[in-house]
Amino acid sequence: MGQESAHIVSSYEQELEQLRSMMARMGGLVEQQTSQAVAAIADRDENAAGIAADLDPQVDKLERDVEAMVIRILALRSPVAGDLREVVSALKITGDMERIGDCAASIARRSLRTELVTSRISLSGLRGMGRLVQDNLRRAIDAMSQRNADLAREVWQSDTAVDELYNAMFRELVTYMMEDPRNIGPCTHLLFIAKNLERIGDHATNIAERVYYTATGEILPVVRPRGGFSGQGG
Amino acid sequence: MGQESAHIVSSYEQELEQLRSMMARMGGLVEQQTSQAVAAIADRDENAAGIAADLDPQVDKLERDVEAMVIRILALRSPVAGDLREVVSALKITGDMERIGDCAASIARRSLRTELVTSRISLSGLRGMGRLVQDNLRRAIDAMSQRNADLAREVWQSDTAVDELYNAMFRELVTYMMEDPRNIGPCTHLLFIAKNLERIGDHATNIAERVYYTATGEILPVVRPRGGFSGQGG
Repeated sequence: MGQESAHIVSSYEQELEQLRSMMARMGGLVEQQTSQAVAAIADRDENAAGIAADLDPQVDKLERDVEAMVIRILALRSPVAGDLREVVSALKITGDMERIGDCAASIARRSLRTELVTSRISLSGLRGMGRLVQDNLRRAIDAMSQRNADLAREVWQSDTAVDELYNAMFRELVTYMMEDPRNIGPCTHLLFIAKNLERIGDHATNIAERVYYTATGEILPVVRPRGGFSGQGG
Repeated sequence: MGQESAHIVSSYEQELEQLRSMMARMGGLVEQQTSQAVAAIADRDENAAGIAADLDPQVDKLERDVEAMVIRILALRSPVAGDLREVVSALKITGDMERIGDCAASIARRSLRTELVTSRISLSGLRGMGRLVQDNLRRAIDAMSQRNADLAREVWQSDTAVDELYNAMFRELVTYMMEDPRNIGPCTHLLFIAKNLERIGDHATNIAERVYYTATGEILPVVRPRGGFSGQGG
């Protein structure tokens, strides 16, 4: 291999590595946003709420940076096969990560509302759901960074548990509202917070599906294991 | 131009046209899903609910078909400049359209719930919001099909009105719940239905932003006009 083509190959590899490192950074940021958002709500931590909301513009900027890098690689390197699949998947994965950031920022903003801060509603269900979603997200991002199809498949399978916790929480919150109209204000916000946590779980599953596809070239079944028509989904 | 290269150019153009026609078809489907979902809820039309839910697999399949076509074009044609931007944007736009389909299917599924079917809550606010969101979505899809930057900019500016209607609806529904605990069941579902309509409006705005970028190469301001921190957003 001549010196020039070695140079080209190496800088192509460097660009792919740079793309991967941007993705890992974005993954780390949305994990941090999510854990701060969960702390904001479960521990009534105002400081954490501020951090989760403040990280959002950084996440949005990274999504745009990844896209610019993808366009650069596509224009200059014309990747094929596995590399092309990886580069295209990067665009889809950053879309999911950006939405995770939005959900976390939304949870954080709601956590500051007076109705919630002063309410005495038990937050133990939300805490458990927050832990599970954080764990799934962390493993989805790990699977992405390690390009680990087995781990991706595992994450994809754990989404059902999040859906079950969400459905239980939905019923619990409606019961609180029925018991005492003063609970209606805080509980409507908690309903949306639980929904946003469930959506973070969904996006983590989407990322896992993508990682699996990028690593193997195969698509996981269209219908993944999840709560049925009768749930509180959507 | 030799016969062979004329052939290559023409089939590249054909592939781009095929991509555009798949996008237009997907856009038409999610418009239809949204109008059926609004009819399902506003006119208590069970048949419309079924149609909105049944269209979802077709929308999902089109998203995968568009991606396969994009990968084909990238691998075989190495598009540059405006064409590359269009092809990459197709992936992002189908992501938004797929989520619009999800929101519409979710509205349709909720509309069938007993609590809602038997309730006497006024649906006039929801009807107005549904009309506005359908209108924005239709114009966003038109802007996409016509690659019309001016129309895209207009759609992008109309999202504020949707947010305002959503915030008004949120307050109205909470009031109904406070008035009579029997309203709590149906109103929680209506809250999520209103939220899903608002999200369809957001995705229509995202599509408009993309169309504007693809047509002009310029990005609309990061912060678009919308309800502030004090709203019921997220």
